[in-house]
Amino acid sequence: MRTNRLEAFSDGVLAIAITIMVLELRTPEDPTLRALWDATGIRFLAYVLSFVFIGIYWNNHHHLFQLVDRVSGSVLWANLHLLFWLSLLPFTTNWMAETEIARAPTIVYGINLLLAGFAFWTLEMTIERGPTEGTRYRDAVGTGNKSLVSLAGCLLGVGAATIAPLLAIGVFAAVTLIWLIPDRRIERYLADPHNAPPPDTGVTK
Amino acid sequence: MRTNRLEAFSDGVLAIAITIMVLELRTPEDPTLRALWDATGIRFLAYVLSFVFIGIYWNNHHHLFQLVDRVSGSVLWANLHLLFWLSLLPFTTNWMAETEIARAPTIVYGINLLLAGFAFWTLEMTIERGPTEGTRYRDAVGTGNKSLVSLAGCLLGVGAATIAPLLAIGVFAAVTLIWLIPDRRIERYLADPHNAPPPDTGVTK
Amino acid sequence: MRTNRLEAFSDGVLAIAITIMVLELRTPEDPTLRALWDATGIRFLAYVLSFVFIGIYWNNHHHLFQLVDRVSGSVLWANLHLLFWLSLLPFTTNWMAETEIARAPTIVYGINLLLAGFAFWTLEMTIERGPTEGTRYRDAVGTGNKSLVSLAGCLLGVGAATIAPLLAIGVFAAVTLIWLIPDRRIERYLADPHNAPPPDTGVTK
Amino acid sequence: MRTNRLEAFSDGVLAIAITIMVLELRTPEDPTLRALWDATGIRFLAYVLSFVFIGIYWNNHHHLFQLVDRVSGSVLWANLHLLFWLSLLPFTTNWMAETEIARAPTIVYGINLLLAGFAFWTLEMTIERGPTEGTRYRDAVGTGNKSLVSLAGCLLGVGAATIAPLLAIGVFAAVTLIWLIPDRRIERYLADPHNAPPPDTGVTK
Repeated sequence: MRTNRLEAFSDGVLAIAITIMVLELRTPEDPTLRALWDATGIRFLAYVLSFVFIGIYWNNHHHLFQLVDRVSGSVLWANLHLLFWLSLLPFTTNWMAETEIARAPTIVYGINLLLAGFAFWTLEMTIERGPTEGTRYRDAVGTGNKSLVSLAGCLLGVGAATIAPLLAIGVFAAVTLIWLIPDRRIERYLADPHNAPPPDTGVTK
Repeated sequence: MRTNRLEAFSDGVLAIAITIMVLELRTPEDPTLRALWDATGIRFLAYVLSFVFIGIYWNNHHHLFQLVDRVSGSVLWANLHLLFWLSLLPFTTNWMAETEIARAPTIVYGINLLLAGFAFWTLEMTIERGPTEGTRYRDAVGTGNKSLVSLAGCLLGVGAATIAPLLAIGVFAAVTLIWLIPDRRIERYLADPHNAPPPDTGVTK
Repeated sequence: MRTNRLEAFSDGVLAIAITIMVLELRTPEDPTLRALWDATGIRFLAYVLSFVFIGIYWNNHHHLFQLVDRVSGSVLWANLHLLFWLSLLPFTTNWMAETEIARAPTIVYGINLLLAGFAFWTLEMTIERGPTEGTRYRDAVGTGNKSLVSLAGCLLGVGAATIAPLLAIGVFAAVTLIWLIPDRRIERYLADPHNAPPPDTGVTK
Repeated sequence: MRTNRLEAFSDGVLAIAITIMVLELRTPEDPTLRALWDATGIRFLAYVLSFVFIGIYWNNHHHLFQLVDRVSGSVLWANLHLLFWLSLLPFTTNWMAETEIARAPTIVYGINLLLAGFAFWTLEMTIERGPTEGTRYRDAVGTGNKSLVSLAGCLLGVGAATIAPLLAIGVFAAVTLIWLIPDRRIERYLADPHNAPPPDTGVTK
């Protein structure tokens, strides 16, 4: 099965999740900068953090599917699983922001990030182990990758949230930095003419 | 008429329907896990159920249009009919969740699922009976299919809701399981080189 | 300039406009069918009417751009003008529904439909008169078309709303019927191999 | 890396941002035209202004990526940076509208436009200086462009807002006019057969 609709649907869900968070920003009643800061300060920081996380997931999703030409049914479900946790992120972001980064909401936010990270890792594994789709992926990326480091970071963040929620925010921000450093492996792999996608016979794709 | 825009528009509507349900999850006032469960417990389960249903419809829609190369005006309207009932699902989900799965809302939710199922079956029939678009579909899938079993399941669920709403939720969950078992017929059909789509002459497509 | 992104962006805006109307449907407090009808009865009918109108516009937009291969800057703006009036439709639908189809809101709703109709006619004219994009469109459709009949219908509806709002709803529903009768001209034109799009040289498209 | 998903994701975010602003228009309680004007008058003008701005950005984004065939990771992030500021526009528009164009909200709105303009300019620079993607862009557009004039206009608008907010609105409206005058350079460049995109080898694109 071709991947174009899977990509279009995922782009749609991620674009909505990243944009509707702004609907939760409440405009202050007083027309002053002070009132703006009081009303949105912390909330805005949480919004930026989640925007960057969803941006990272879109980016990684985009990279991942560059290497995949056909998908089976299990990849469709692994992808929906990922979209589920990412579509919850506006909710957990909002709760954390409204409570001004209280303990329980920050733990829940971290668990949401953790589950999204786990879903992405599951998606990678489903692709890697798939009979047809995994070939180019295995060649390009191999086994060890940043997803596990990122998962460990989110786990650390959840732990930190039980002690000091603000510390957890710092840990989550650090996890985003891991992803801002580009992974050149996929780009290098694709730049090599030997790694061209199989010719499109117009049959199954 | 080519199918790419029909697919893109449907992807858009389904992506929005699946994502806006999260806007209805209300954040609790108290920053405790207990308050989160009180505020979102049942609602969250309803959200998961509807997320899976819309995911299934997207999945089935995707499979269905793999076999269709050109569509006539009646397919466009049969598709809009399906999107109409699916775009109502966030509303009926929300009512059922807010009333903590009361009788009437659960019946309405079941009727919504039933009408969406009926609309999907109508779409399949419109494609199967179409002069041009049905050929490959008839070869691959034939007449009997899971849509009718799923319709019967939703009907059973509506009946169960009149007795015990929670039982209905169980029935609806069982209906999703029917669809999680993949239908290999379309994938097998497409894998056979003899079933290639007709060569694209660049004229009508 | 190629049309694929214009189509994708328009699909996005129309998919959102058609889906967010459901956010305005308020769930009733009592879990009874009676309460559901009291809370959403009229509103639901207004929702169906607007859903069908946006569906018609998507359908017509889809047909129109089948005949267009390249667009100039003025087509982009004529298209945004159309999207502007269609993106307002959830708002005017909502006001009409909330006031249970009162006079002024129904007039405003009719004016919104009228302006959307005018914007679509402007878009058709911009394409027809364009130096490059109009050729195939002129051949296929010629000058007289249903857009003007539809505009006259909406004007009649606005007039009817000043006397009896419910009569206006009847007129608007009649206007949708004009569009449900398919316009076979574009499909027939495209089916003729002589009317193939110009070969794609890969240069400007 | 190919640009199709970057374009699809950007189209999604822009389509949502341009459409959700209408969710902030509040329907008046009284069913009269007078009440409509009281409730939405100023807000509607702010809505139109932001609709035009997002339309302009979509238009410019569309033009820009016509000249780009492959992008690197830094372009993806420069693009997300632009989408971030544009996704905030519904919020700042809303605050300015609710406060009936008070001083501080108008300054914040202007700063939002300024930051979006800066992000677009950064995106242009990232593309122009990129090792592979910039070649055709540099040939077609060169260095001087309207982005800087637009940035200066927004800066002037922010300054004007500190004196008289309505004057600032006039300045922002004038900035939109700069963009409504089409930039023929890209269209002319693409019309010349010598500037065809490099043949698609099916390898890296």
